[in-house]
Amino acid sequence: MRAYDIILKKRNGGKLTKEEIEFMVNGYVKGEIPDYQMSAFLMAIYFRHMDTEERAIFTEVMANSGDKVDLSSIPGIKIDKHSTGGVGDKTTLVVGPIVASLGVPVAKMSGRALGHTGGTIDKLESIPGFRTSLTEEEFFENVRKIGIAVVGQTANLVPADKKIYALRDATATVDEVSLIAASIMSKKLAGGADGYVLDVKVGSGAFMKTIEQATELAEAMVGIAKSHGKKAVAVLTNMDVPLGKMVGNSLEVLEAIETLKGNGPEDFTQLCITLSAWMCHLAEKGTYEECVQLAKNALESGKAFEKFREFVKYQGGNPEVVDKPKEILPMTDKIVEFTAPEDGYITAIDTEKIGIASNYLGAGRKTKEDTIDYSVGIEIIKKLGDYVKKGEPIAKMYVSEKSDTETARKLLLESYKFSPEKPEHKPIILGIVK
Amino acid sequence: MRAYDIILKKRNGGKLTKEEIEFMVNGYVKGEIPDYQMSAFLMAIYFRHMDTEERAIFTEVMANSGDKVDLSSIPGIKIDKHSTGGVGDKTTLVVGPIVASLGVPVAKMSGRALGHTGGTIDKLESIPGFRTSLTEEEFFENVRKIGIAVVGQTANLVPADKKIYALRDATATVDEVSLIAASIMSKKLAGGADGYVLDVKVGSGAFMKTIEQATELAEAMVGIAKSHGKKAVAVLTNMDVPLGKMVGNSLEVLEAIETLKGNGPEDFTQLCITLSAWMCHLAEKGTYEECVQLAKNALESGKAFEKFREFVKYQGGNPEVVDKPKEILPMTDKIVEFTAPEDGYITAIDTEKIGIASNYLGAGRKTKEDTIDYSVGIEIIKKLGDYVKKGEPIAKMYVSEKSDTETARKLLLESYKFSPEKPEHKPIILGIVK
Repeated sequence: MRAYDIILKKRNGGKLTKEEIEFMVNGYVKGEIPDYQMSAFLMAIYFRHMDTEERAIFTEVMANSGDKVDLSSIPGIKIDKHSTGGVGDKTTLVVGPIVASLGVPVAKMSGRALGHTGGTIDKLESIPGFRTSLTEEEFFENVRKIGIAVVGQTANLVPADKKIYALRDATATVDEVSLIAASIMSKKLAGGADGYVLDVKVGSGAFMKTIEQATELAEAMVGIAKSHGKKAVAVLTNMDVPLGKMVGNSLEVLEAIETLKGNGPEDFTQLCITLSAWMCHLAEKGTYEECVQLAKNALESGKAFEKFREFVKYQGGNPEVVDKPKEILPMTDKIVEFTAPEDGYITAIDTEKIGIASNYLGAGRKTKEDTIDYSVGIEIIKKLGDYVKKGEPIAKMYVSEKSDTETARKLLLESYKFSPEKPEHKPIILGIVK
Repeated sequence: MRAYDIILKKRNGGKLTKEEIEFMVNGYVKGEIPDYQMSAFLMAIYFRHMDTEERAIFTEVMANSGDKVDLSSIPGIKIDKHSTGGVGDKTTLVVGPIVASLGVPVAKMSGRALGHTGGTIDKLESIPGFRTSLTEEEFFENVRKIGIAVVGQTANLVPADKKIYALRDATATVDEVSLIAASIMSKKLAGGADGYVLDVKVGSGAFMKTIEQATELAEAMVGIAKSHGKKAVAVLTNMDVPLGKMVGNSLEVLEAIETLKGNGPEDFTQLCITLSAWMCHLAEKGTYEECVQLAKNALESGKAFEKFREFVKYQGGNPEVVDKPKEILPMTDKIVEFTAPEDGYITAIDTEKIGIASNYLGAGRKTKEDTIDYSVGIEIIKKLGDYVKKGEPIAKMYVSEKSDTETARKLLLESYKFSPEKPEHKPIILGIVK
C-alpha cells in the first residue's frame, strides 16, 4: 500500500477502505507518512469529501490513536454534551448540575478557549481553588459520589486529531464537514460516553454561518455516533447573538450561577433546559417532554443549584462562590460603558467580533502560553431587537490595566448594526437532528 | 502575505496575483514555505486550475528561478522544438539537421529517458565518443559554426520546476493541465529561443490519452508562449503506435540515419517534415507550404544527412556512424523473434507497454543511477492495420544477457490486439494548435 495511490484514489473521487484510512492516519501519526502527503490528501478530501462509512472509519481510527476513557465502572447511561463553540457559551456550567441532579452521570472532559470562543475549563478555573486536573481516581470517585466531574482533556487524547488539526490549520483544510465531524466525534468516542447531545451553533458567532452548513455538520456527527452504536441528538442553536448577556470568564460563571438560581436570561435558560432534557431523554429518564419538565423542576426546586455548590466543593473550589459570586470571583471594578452611536433598533450583532473584543480586553489567549485575565469581559445590555437612543449604554466593558480597550470599542462599534425597522425575532432553538 | 491565505484563495476558486504566485514559488524554492503548504496549494490548483494569466505568470516565475540561456549572440530567429514524450521518438535527430541545413539555428537542450519514454540525450550518447556536456563556449561556438548543437539540461535550469515536480510526483498532482504546461514552458522560456514548435503526443503511448486532453494542453502551452511574446505552434501527433519501427537507443539512431538518407518509415518521415516545416515557417523562411518543400528538399538532396555527419563530428562522436551505423553503434547480435499469437489484423498496440518492454530489455533506467544498455531494444515489424498469420514474426527483441526477455515478451503479448476486421487508418498528424 502506498500513500500516493490513496491520495490519487481520493482525488479521483474514490471511496476509501478501512485499510487505506488506517494506513494514512496511523502512518501519519507514526511519522511514516510525511506532512506533504497528508496535506495533499486533506485537500483532496476537502474537494471530494467522505461518505458516511468513510467518516465513521476515519473517526474510529483517530479515536483509537491514543488513550480512551472507560466509563463502564460508573453505573447508568452516560450522556456527554458537546458544543461546537460559541461566544458566551456557559451551558456546561448549568446543564451539568441540572442533569447530575436528575441522576444522569456527568463525567466530562472539556476544552480551553480557542480563537474567539471561550472554553469551559478556563471559566471553571476562574473560581478560586477550582481544580480541573483531577487524577483518574478522583475523577471517577467524584462522579460516583456526587454524579458530576469536569476535567481538562488528557494530553494523549486522540493524538491523530491533534497532529492532523495542526496541519489542516496551516493548509486551509479546516472547513470541510467530514473532517470537522471526525475531529469532534473522535474525541467524543475516546471520552467513552454512551450517547451525545450535540449543540451545533449557527450564525455570525459560530463556525457554521448558515443553517444548511450546520444541518450538514449535525447530520455528519449524528451519523458517526450511530455508526458506532451510540445514541445521539444534535440541537441547532442560534449564535447570531452572544448566548446570555455575559462574555468573559468570571462574568460567565456569575451568569451561570444566576441562571441556576432561576434568574438567568430567557434565551440561555431555554437552551439549558432543552439540552438537559435531551440528555435525560437519551439517558432513558422519560420522554423528551417529561424530561423538559424534570429539567425545569431541577432549576425551580434549587436542586441543580445545590448540585453546582457540591460540584465546586468536590473539585476544590470555594463553594461560597454560589452565594456571593461577585465577592469570590475575580472581578474588575473598572467598567467602561459602550454607548449607541445612533438611534434605532439593533438589527445585528457580529458575535465573532464580540468574542474577539473580549479577547482584546484580556479574556482569551493570543498564543497557547498566554495567561487569561478572568476578571475582564463584556456585558451585553441591549440585545437584538431592542430599540436604543444615541448615547444610551448598550454594553459594558469590564477592563483591566492590560486591556486594549480602544480596539475592543472599535470591534463593538463594528459589530452592532441599527435600523428604524424592528428585526424579526429568531428563536434560540433552530432545529433538531436525530 | 501568508501562504495560508494564498492556498485558501486558490482553494475557493480565486484568481492569484503576480505577487501571490511569486510569494509561493520563490518562497518554496528558498525553503521558506514548507512542502506541506505547497502540496496543499498544488492539490487546490488540481481542482481549481489556473487561467491564462495565472499560467503565464506561474511559468515566468519558475523560468526566472535559475539560470537562463541568452541566445541573442547567435544571429537569426531561434526556434526550439519540444516533444511531450513518446515511445520511439527520435525526431530531434532528424528535425535538427533538416532545419539547421536550412539556416535555422538549433541551440537545443534535451532531456534523458523518463518513465516509459526515451530521451534524446541518451540516444545521442549511444554514438561512440558523442559528448552531450559541452561548455557554454563550445555550445555557442558549434551553433555559430555549423548551426546545430544539442546538450543536456544544465543543473540549475528552472530549479523551481525540479522541486515542485518532485513534490507533485509524490502527491498525485502531476496531471493538471496548467501545471504540466507551466512545467514544460518554464524550461522552454529559460532555454532562450524566440519561438517553439510543440509536438504534443496523443494516444496509448502518450501522457495525454485523448485528443481533447492533448488539445487543452497544446492550447495552454501556446497561450503561455504568446503571453511572453514568443511564437508558437503545437502539432498534435498520433502516439497510438510507436513512432517509426525502432524503440531503443542505438536502434533509434540507426532509424534516424536511415530517415536522413530518405529510407525512413513513412509516418516518421512525414512527422519530421511537418515539424521541420513549422520551425522554418516560424523562423520566417517562407510560408508553411514553402517550408514543407524546403524540408523535403533538405532530405532528398542529402543536405540534412551531411549536416547530421557534421553535428556528430563537432560533438566528438565518430562521424563514420552515418555511413556504417550497424558497425559503429553498439548493437547486440542476439535477436529474439516475437510471433503473432493468432491470425488477424493488428488493431491496437499499447505503446506505453512497448516502451516498458524495451526498458525490461535494458534500454531505460529504473532509478536515476541505472546505466542504459544502448545495444538493446525492439523492432516493430508489423504495424497497426497489417494482417498477420499465427506464428509469423511481428516484432524483434534485441536482447543482452541482462535483459528480462520473458517479461518483455509478456508485455508485447499484452500490447498487441488482433481482429478479423481491418481497423481504420489514423494519420500521424492529428491537428494543429496555433
